[in-house]
Amino acid sequence: MDEEKADPISTPHREVSALDAGDANASVEKLFSGKVVPPWQRQLTLRAFVVSLILSVLFTFIVMKLNLTTGVIPSLSVSAGLLGFFFVKTWTKILDGFGILKQPFTRQENTVIQTCVVASAGIAFSGGFGSYIFGMSEKIAKLGDKAFHQDISNPHLGKLIGFLFVVSFLGLFSVVPLRKIMIIDFKLIYPSGTATAYLINSLHTPKGAKLAKKQVKALGKFFSFSFLWAFFQWFFTGGDNCGFVNFPTFGLKAFENRFYFDFSATYVGVGMICPYLINVSLLFGAILSWGIMWPLIEARKGDWYDASLVKTMHGLQGYQIFIAIAIILGDGLYNFVKVFGQTILGLYRQFQAKKSDNFTPSDEHPDDEVSPSQSFDDQRRTQYFIKDQIPNWVAVAGYVTIATVSIITLPHIFHSLKWYYILVMYIIAPMLAFCNAYGCGLTDWSLASTYGKLAIFMIGAWAGSSHGGIVAGLAACGVMMNIVSTASDLSQDFKTGYLTLASPRSMFVSQIIGTGMGCIISPCVFWLFYKAYPNLGEPTSQYKAPYALIYRNIAVLGVEGFGSLPKNCLTLCLIFFVAAMAINGLRDSVGSKWARFIPIPMAMAIPFYIGGYFAIDMCVGSLILFVWQYRNKANADAFGPAVASGLICGDGIWTLPSSILALAGVNPPLCMQVVPRLKG
Amino acid sequence: MDEEKADPISTPHREVSALDAGDANASVEKLFSGKVVPPWQRQLTLRAFVVSLILSVLFTFIVMKLNLTTGVIPSLSVSAGLLGFFFVKTWTKILDGFGILKQPFTRQENTVIQTCVVASAGIAFSGGFGSYIFGMSEKIAKLGDKAFHQDISNPHLGKLIGFLFVVSFLGLFSVVPLRKIMIIDFKLIYPSGTATAYLINSLHTPKGAKLAKKQVKALGKFFSFSFLWAFFQWFFTGGDNCGFVNFPTFGLKAFENRFYFDFSATYVGVGMICPYLINVSLLFGAILSWGIMWPLIEARKGDWYDASLVKTMHGLQGYQIFIAIAIILGDGLYNFVKVFGQTILGLYRQFQAKKSDNFTPSDEHPDDEVSPSQSFDDQRRTQYFIKDQIPNWVAVAGYVTIATVSIITLPHIFHSLKWYYILVMYIIAPMLAFCNAYGCGLTDWSLASTYGKLAIFMIGAWAGSSHGGIVAGLAACGVMMNIVSTASDLSQDFKTGYLTLASPRSMFVSQIIGTGMGCIISPCVFWLFYKAYPNLGEPTSQYKAPYALIYRNIAVLGVEGFGSLPKNCLTLCLIFFVAAMAINGLRDSVGSKWARFIPIPMAMAIPFYIGGYFAIDMCVGSLILFVWQYRNKANADAFGPAVASGLICGDGIWTLPSSILALAGVNPPLCMQVVPRLKG
Repeated sequence: MDEEKADPISTPHREVSALDAGDANASVEKLFSGKVVPPWQRQLTLRAFVVSLILSVLFTFIVMKLNLTTGVIPSLSVSAGLLGFFFVKTWTKILDGFGILKQPFTRQENTVIQTCVVASAGIAFSGGFGSYIFGMSEKIAKLGDKAFHQDISNPHLGKLIGFLFVVSFLGLFSVVPLRKIMIIDFKLIYPSGTATAYLINSLHTPKGAKLAKKQVKALGKFFSFSFLWAFFQWFFTGGDNCGFVNFPTFGLKAFENRFYFDFSATYVGVGMICPYLINVSLLFGAILSWGIMWPLIEARKGDWYDASLVKTMHGLQGYQIFIAIAIILGDGLYNFVKVFGQTILGLYRQFQAKKSDNFTPSDEHPDDEVSPSQSFDDQRRTQYFIKDQIPNWVAVAGYVTIATVSIITLPHIFHSLKWYYILVMYIIAPMLAFCNAYGCGLTDWSLASTYGKLAIFMIGAWAGSSHGGIVAGLAACGVMMNIVSTASDLSQDFKTGYLTLASPRSMFVSQIIGTGMGCIISPCVFWLFYKAYPNLGEPTSQYKAPYALIYRNIAVLGVEGFGSLPKNCLTLCLIFFVAAMAINGLRDSVGSKWARFIPIPMAMAIPFYIGGYFAIDMCVGSLILFVWQYRNKANADAFGPAVASGLICGDGIWTLPSSILALAGVNPPLCMQVVPRLKG
Repeated sequence: MDEEKADPISTPHREVSALDAGDANASVEKLFSGKVVPPWQRQLTLRAFVVSLILSVLFTFIVMKLNLTTGVIPSLSVSAGLLGFFFVKTWTKILDGFGILKQPFTRQENTVIQTCVVASAGIAFSGGFGSYIFGMSEKIAKLGDKAFHQDISNPHLGKLIGFLFVVSFLGLFSVVPLRKIMIIDFKLIYPSGTATAYLINSLHTPKGAKLAKKQVKALGKFFSFSFLWAFFQWFFTGGDNCGFVNFPTFGLKAFENRFYFDFSATYVGVGMICPYLINVSLLFGAILSWGIMWPLIEARKGDWYDASLVKTMHGLQGYQIFIAIAIILGDGLYNFVKVFGQTILGLYRQFQAKKSDNFTPSDEHPDDEVSPSQSFDDQRRTQYFIKDQIPNWVAVAGYVTIATVSIITLPHIFHSLKWYYILVMYIIAPMLAFCNAYGCGLTDWSLASTYGKLAIFMIGAWAGSSHGGIVAGLAACGVMMNIVSTASDLSQDFKTGYLTLASPRSMFVSQIIGTGMGCIISPCVFWLFYKAYPNLGEPTSQYKAPYALIYRNIAVLGVEGFGSLPKNCLTLCLIFFVAAMAINGLRDSVGSKWARFIPIPMAMAIPFYIGGYFAIDMCVGSLILFVWQYRNKANADAFGPAVASGLICGDGIWTLPSSILALAGVNPPLCMQVVPRLKG
């Protein structure tokens, strides 16, 4: 899975896990030389898509839950890889037992599943259900500025599916013609795609399959534990502020300031996957905001803002949201400039090299063609990668057709989004998509949400407040994000396919099918949540959907400027905007040895609005992993990701029965609560 | 530690753990032949008694807590052994580091510590703070029959210390003259004493010391965890029915019938130490009583008893208490007859054997003198055991002196306990003490509490209801239990000493000092609980002290007969009395292969009054151990007892700060509670 999904906390220097990096320098393809690579049509098996469908639903639930609780989404590619492998392996074993197995399970097929699941679950993120789409709704509007209470567009199942179908496929077509340049000529790394490929390759070697079996077992064990724990917790959540999720672990005072351990297996697992620095940054941000700044700002009520407006955008909440936005924009801008600069520089170097008619690899792989074993791998991989072509006219025709449909239909879905806004975006988009795919290949950092925020400002300001600028801006964000995000997704997948000898054609078909699945599954899952939890998006709800309000307020800023901010808020925002850039600059200038002690501003900003409780969960996950690594590093590295995936998936899938129960009107029978000491 | 302490649930077939039984057939003494055995005076070091004092306080707290919560007390000898070893070893290491170590740590010294701690903590049990002493108090009297509300004797610190000092030493003097017969001539096994000796021996071999270090580490880890968990839980107990101890794990309906997991680390640990059969019997008893019988009997209210009296002795509670008593008495009687019969039979055989001038060992060790290695061990052990004598006149003079003091003073403490009751008891007591010591040597089953109950009946009936028969009976129970219980304790210790070459003289001195410590520490600890928790003994309290009411009602039965029982209660009691004997008979007749599937009646009776929650804790402990053994048997056997001890000790020692906080009026700040679903 890809970086843009871990959007607000994506790591520029993603660590490739020990498992994945296993035999990076030995010849992988020699190990597989005995195995036949099936033609591309046979890589696209029915079973692969059945498994993909099951996993897509699973991961869509998980991603949707994460979207709607905190917006922190870790990379789920390891769990997708393991689970996909497990399902098909079980399937083929059973068929083999009956003697009716027609086709053995190949790594190419595994890549097809991975691609399809990533594409499908990716829509759950890039569909913006926790951000721009939900930010248009009346519910979120009511939390914000009164002036824009009418500038809304409530979600509706049909509308959402339609919207996704017309915007999600464009990204695919925009990078298809460029895949050979990215993968073969530029030899970009795509760290996530490479890591996934190593995982899949390792699963299909005999030694890897043995380890995978153990990993799947560990995953299954913690999946069950996490599911049962979520199930158990459910019984005690009958009523507001009931249940373990509201347990004031550190006392009521700390609970009021949102410092508590909420017993969420999901975020403990997320904490085990995210690098320590992210978790510590989150905690640091929580302490800075809820521990220091908010109490200080709250003490100013009556002076800085009207005391009766504490819980509105004109009071304390305004500071929380806008300071968070300032940091997110500051960090985003810094990284945009940086990654864009690197992209330009990289391209410049590539063309310089090309000019001298010498296809030297990018400087990440200086010895690529020196080592003979790598040459064998490269040779074989290149051979398979260029065997099945996707004609450029297909890509161009596809893009133009869909763009036309989109330009015609989108203004009917969002009335304030005029057809010429869309046309302009579709002209710029392929370039941005390419930039993002290239930048992501270099740094693993997808700027999809940054481009999205850019679109909010641009189109929002263009439309203006009197012509529904908020909805126009947010819808534009969706259009832009979907294109840019799927472009980098598909490039990662092409890299995975390249390294596992999967045909680009089968990858492309798989991604199209996956995207199609996602366009239907994601809105349905969102709709389930939306109907099951009427308090979705409210600041006291379990499903706060914090980014919905943040995205909406970015649009408000774009349309309205800084006029609506409470006293001193602009000053504070500016300070944090500059600080975010300065800290990033500092991180880059001191080198990675010291950078790992400097918090990441983007991560710090998240708890500003929602509080520190999930940061505490994640630090608990970090602590567990740290102790585990201290005691048995090899074991922790091999099984940590599996355990974390189990924790995330088990808790995540419980949201399915839980939301069905909520829809059916079955309420939990009990309420566990903590109150001040009872007298008597 | 000894069986009578696990009184209601003592196991006739105690399993000697794999660790202890280690090298049962190799020559242990050859391993130690290079080590000098210090003379008895040097076995009694100051450091040994300082460590003993610390551990005595620790274990008194633990035993007192167990007394006052459920009355289920496991063997704590492994933890005492490990902790004693750990403390002195650390001490000697530090002194050695400074170069001022005068005397190395020997296993004899370790035995002295073990003996002293067992003697001291034993008082916490045989002092009857959870049974006969507290049963005399006004508080417990108020829960019972109105007719006896005046027949009380409230506890008082000075009174308790005085009482213990005059009754606790008699048992010691009564078995001292018999030790050679028991240990050398009869070669009785004393399973607990033997197990302790094996543990101590193994700790002092190099390999054993290495394992011990790991065990101590495991103990320390779980000690800390358990302590911190108890500390954490404390914060949420502000108010009645608050906190994790009242968590309705299986729903409110089950909670009302006392089926829930109360998160007690102590009883999870206890469950890990107790055999599976005990835990299953407890659970079975809980299901039979609270799951089936009590709901059925409660449905008869208004018919069998007055509906307004449900929660009194004349209502449901009467059935609970008296049916439990019936089982306890039935089981007790059966085992009394059985063990007494075995004792007589054993003695008869011994004397038969002696007649033919041939000191053959008891039939438990048919090959004792055949194996040459055992002969070496036996030779050396016998040599050290008979080296230091305790003159018989010391024993007789001691017994007579203390008995005289006791006869004069006791009637001043308990006015209804006439001097001639005491005289009669002191004439019979040495015989019973011998029987108990002998029976315990054969079967590891101490009948101390059965003899105590016998005394309640006898003296209670003799005194009669008009002359304070209740208090007289309960006090007599105390006199009898203390003698009989210390007799078997000391015999176990002599066996331990025999197997570790500790001098009987040093054992005797250590036990005297330990008993003296216990006579002061135990009442003080009880006093702390008594003052800190004003609701001690109440059926809804955390400290229910269930045996106080049970013992008092045994006295009521003795004084009053069956007149006070509610309708059909006598019939039910008779059924259960007979059933308890029948089940025991069945257990003995089918052989151990099938007996392990037949529940133990005594264990089944405990939850009848207090409910099944602690049985659930203990079964969780069993389950943990079972899974652990399944996965790694050697590891579980080596570390299971240490982990269990850590859990018990950590939670137990938290009662010290917690009761001090309660005394100081510091109340927990929060209340965690579970209530039915909140509307709205």
